[in-house]
Amino acid sequence: MSKALAYAAASKTSPMAPITIFRRELRSNDVNIEILYCGVCHTDIHTAHGEWDGLIYPNGTLYPCVPGHEIVGRVTSVGPNVKRFRVGEFVAVGTMVDSCLECDNCKAGLEPYCQKYATWTYNAPDRISGDNTQGGYSDSIVVREEFVLELNFPEQSLAAVAPLLCAGITMWSPLRHWKIGPESKVGIVGIGGLGHMGIRLARARGAHVVAFTTSESKREGALKSGAQEVVVSSSPEEMNTQAGKLDFILNTIAVPHNLDAYLALLGHGGTMALVGIPEKRHPSPSVASLIGLRRTLAGSLVGGIKETQEMLDFCAENGVLAETETIPMQEIETAFARMVKNDVKYRFVVDMKSLKVYV
Amino acid sequence: MSKALAYAAASKTSPMAPITIFRRELRSNDVNIEILYCGVCHTDIHTAHGEWDGLIYPNGTLYPCVPGHEIVGRVTSVGPNVKRFRVGEFVAVGTMVDSCLECDNCKAGLEPYCQKYATWTYNAPDRISGDNTQGGYSDSIVVREEFVLELNFPEQSLAAVAPLLCAGITMWSPLRHWKIGPESKVGIVGIGGLGHMGIRLARARGAHVVAFTTSESKREGALKSGAQEVVVSSSPEEMNTQAGKLDFILNTIAVPHNLDAYLALLGHGGTMALVGIPEKRHPSPSVASLIGLRRTLAGSLVGGIKETQEMLDFCAENGVLAETETIPMQEIETAFARMVKNDVKYRFVVDMKSLKVYV
Repeated sequence: MSKALAYAAASKTSPMAPITIFRRELRSNDVNIEILYCGVCHTDIHTAHGEWDGLIYPNGTLYPCVPGHEIVGRVTSVGPNVKRFRVGEFVAVGTMVDSCLECDNCKAGLEPYCQKYATWTYNAPDRISGDNTQGGYSDSIVVREEFVLELNFPEQSLAAVAPLLCAGITMWSPLRHWKIGPESKVGIVGIGGLGHMGIRLARARGAHVVAFTTSESKREGALKSGAQEVVVSSSPEEMNTQAGKLDFILNTIAVPHNLDAYLALLGHGGTMALVGIPEKRHPSPSVASLIGLRRTLAGSLVGGIKETQEMLDFCAENGVLAETETIPMQEIETAFARMVKNDVKYRFVVDMKSLKVYV
Repeated sequence: MSKALAYAAASKTSPMAPITIFRRELRSNDVNIEILYCGVCHTDIHTAHGEWDGLIYPNGTLYPCVPGHEIVGRVTSVGPNVKRFRVGEFVAVGTMVDSCLECDNCKAGLEPYCQKYATWTYNAPDRISGDNTQGGYSDSIVVREEFVLELNFPEQSLAAVAPLLCAGITMWSPLRHWKIGPESKVGIVGIGGLGHMGIRLARARGAHVVAFTTSESKREGALKSGAQEVVVSSSPEEMNTQAGKLDFILNTIAVPHNLDAYLALLGHGGTMALVGIPEKRHPSPSVASLIGLRRTLAGSLVGGIKETQEMLDFCAENGVLAETETIPMQEIETAFARMVKNDVKYRFVVDMKSLKVYV
């Protein structure tokens, strides 16, 4: 075992604070990674604060909890059977660190839907030891080779790569699944950490992108993120200009809202994919909204490992990165508070050098 | 103009009663049809009773209202430009009698989704005269050639053909759109007029069919309709045997119910299509049900003319017919009452000879 410096929540109500944790001895197929950057995802907040107890986590959050699943780092050592990675290489880890790799879903590259052991990067039992997994708010992590991703980005962009590992793939997977390309007119609803990546990825795939935001003040930012059109969703007139015009909507809003207002913007056969899980349910969508034009309402959850690698390679090739604000680990509570107020453009990334300096 | 004998509702609360209506002079592209049989659809009841005012019909039901949109008959005369039909031929008319035929949706064979004048067979303004359309509870009807369907069934099966025109196509269109075939495991929820056609059509397309019904007493009927398996949905144990196993669910239930219980039966990427519009909304489905396995919830509404002809030809070739109980027009109120109590196996069909005899 090796010691790692980390930040953890000690309980639902405790502020994030320094802790020393232990990473396992390398198994034969393990990669030991020095973490350089870790993105800050809303899931980190929900988990640290125990807000998904029962909803997503049947056993709730186990404390102490070290969040973080948008991890970029450098290989420091490898187990004897590791073939794809060498010491010194830049690598990444996303929302998963293990799965059975044998069930139908795993074989189809759908590891997040593994029928046995989809093991999240934090707050999940390790498949072998049963220990609670601890995430990327830490200076190192040990991960099974198959769940380590290759990076082909220049070193100076690594902080802006981190958010691709959750926000990026959460947007990429549905855009890919529903075959969004140059023929598509796509709506991205909610311009935050996920949404700004949705705009960038949909644009890079050639789509025409309409961004939907709740307030006039965010219009400029959405345009800067690359949207060709921006609709302020509080204006029925503006919403109406898009009625029936969109092929696909990626809806990132994680608070209950009127889904019918967006379904009405889809043309015949259009799909709205939801990627946010609200604590309380959305008002029930009207069946008439769906039946009237054979529309569909769907959900999507991150993506598989192969798909994530594909997304990373696409982003490296097309220069797609997240827009980030880099912070030291010690400012994580302020970052959480600002995220809850939607006050970030668009993703905080923790620079793990800060851990070594100040702990 | 020509006189037609019909049955109409004079108001929301009036029982169906005899009336004489006028069918328009034949336009150059019109077909005049002597109606032989007309199926009795739940839509007929909802419309006659004004239950869809505001919900489906922006202007409500206009009275007197002659329902009926599962029409089988014989051509009695044709306008000078009619090319596809000759006097004496058996033909059919479904839920639509006109549309613009010029918009993108019409050109794509999606006439029910016409962007201008999707004209329902009853309770809709005629595109040219503006007169309220009157349906198939009548001894004749005049319909634009493009909306008349060809029939290649033997004469003795014509009563059992009538329900194909709404119930049949409402099931066929989603089965076709979602490519249900020999590889598919399909759930049909609700074994009534629609559901029993869903079972028969899905089976004829080669799928494995699991029927879902609310009560033990309907198990045998569902098996007789052709389902390979039947699940009594009030039993959580029985429901659980199908968890994650279905590729597609056709849900015909038109009263609010728990959609999550059925979404849980879909495997990864599965779709549930709703074809019933409840008066009040379903309880809101859980986003987690959708996101967890990238499932989709969809709606579907009858089908286009080309697709309806395709379905009729498929049924003629494969011997697919509805199971019907034939009644005289004079018993329509009893039929309505029995349908509301779900007491019919599985579709009433009115024999229009009765109109001539007794009116």
